[in-house]
Amino acid sequence: MTALKLHDLELSGNCYKVRLFCSLLGLKLDVAPVDFLAGAHKKSPLIEKNPFGEIPVFEDGGVVLRDSQAILVYLARKYGGESWLPTDAAGMAEVVSWLMVAENEIARGPNDARLHDKFGFKLDVEAAREKAKRIIGLMEAHLAKRDWLAAGRPTIADIACMPYVALSHEGGISLQPYPRVRAWIDRIKALPGFVTMPAL
Amino acid sequence: MTALKLHDLELSGNCYKVRLFCSLLGLKLDVAPVDFLAGAHKKSPLIEKNPFGEIPVFEDGGVVLRDSQAILVYLARKYGGESWLPTDAAGMAEVVSWLMVAENEIARGPNDARLHDKFGFKLDVEAAREKAKRIIGLMEAHLAKRDWLAAGRPTIADIACMPYVALSHEGGISLQPYPRVRAWIDRIKALPGFVTMPAL
Repeated sequence: MTALKLHDLELSGNCYKVRLFCSLLGLKLDVAPVDFLAGAHKKSPLIEKNPFGEIPVFEDGGVVLRDSQAILVYLARKYGGESWLPTDAAGMAEVVSWLMVAENEIARGPNDARLHDKFGFKLDVEAAREKAKRIIGLMEAHLAKRDWLAAGRPTIADIACMPYVALSHEGGISLQPYPRVRAWIDRIKALPGFVTMPAL
Repeated sequence: MTALKLHDLELSGNCYKVRLFCSLLGLKLDVAPVDFLAGAHKKSPLIEKNPFGEIPVFEDGGVVLRDSQAILVYLARKYGGESWLPTDAAGMAEVVSWLMVAENEIARGPNDARLHDKFGFKLDVEAAREKAKRIIGLMEAHLAKRDWLAAGRPTIADIACMPYVALSHEGGISLQPYPRVRAWIDRIKALPGFVTMPAL
């Protein structure tokens, strides 16, 4: 097996998803810190690996991937058997629908609010907080009948959605009204091989 | 085979993705128009099928799915063999990375600009147009070396990304500076079984 490599920022929840999932899978990962403040992700050599100029960037031998959700799909398919991403049509689509929640509602909600509060991004933080409350409320209702987001077991849906929800307080959103979401975060934290990140 | 059913809005590019892909696959699809202006998607019985209160909603027997990208994954896996969504780790992740572009950059760019101009949504249309030009420019560069977004052949990556890019003019964005993107749209329009939508 070639060495897995992550071009990483410790405070990025998207990078953390990759670190977490590799740890859950028992995979050795070379973590290469990116000088984010200097804009290293927007310059050569990283910009050739990811023309979007963003992190994470992931490498496995000759395979180079961008987007944390796509990287989770790769790792699940390559190293996780059927466990973390079902291969049947309905099961795969159910998991993917939650990967889309991570990419859309959670990114525009708690992630955007945290980018504003913690990193000074200029954006409509009130709108982001409203979106955060909407999606976390939907997750609270969804988790009333189940322990995991999809497939009745831990999948990459949970890995993709958890970090920015669990970091909501860094964007001014309390999880106090959402006991099932908090219990779900605790279940993920109890998985064998779990690793944490700052402020989680 | 049970009847496939789409709860549909004709002017929605996300609903169109499902109609288009079913047609490309030669599948019969029952299209049930949703009274969007009356908010039928936010009321019973649709809200029970999709608690997010959005369309498209898709049904195949007992399988009920939300999110156009997840529906494309389902259809590809169930009815498309290997053609439209590779099952190897790197191929699947490459396609998924473009599904994420549809869910994120294209939704926040040309789709948001169209929602403002055509449907009166209150949002920062200048920011949406800037995001549109950025992602369409990245796609133009990506298509310099290839005919399709991923895997060297038509996949659900193309189906997911094409509609709102091809509708950019409805959000005040011209595709004139992007000849490769226009040629790519034309290639999709030439696929056997292609169907169009209003303004495309």
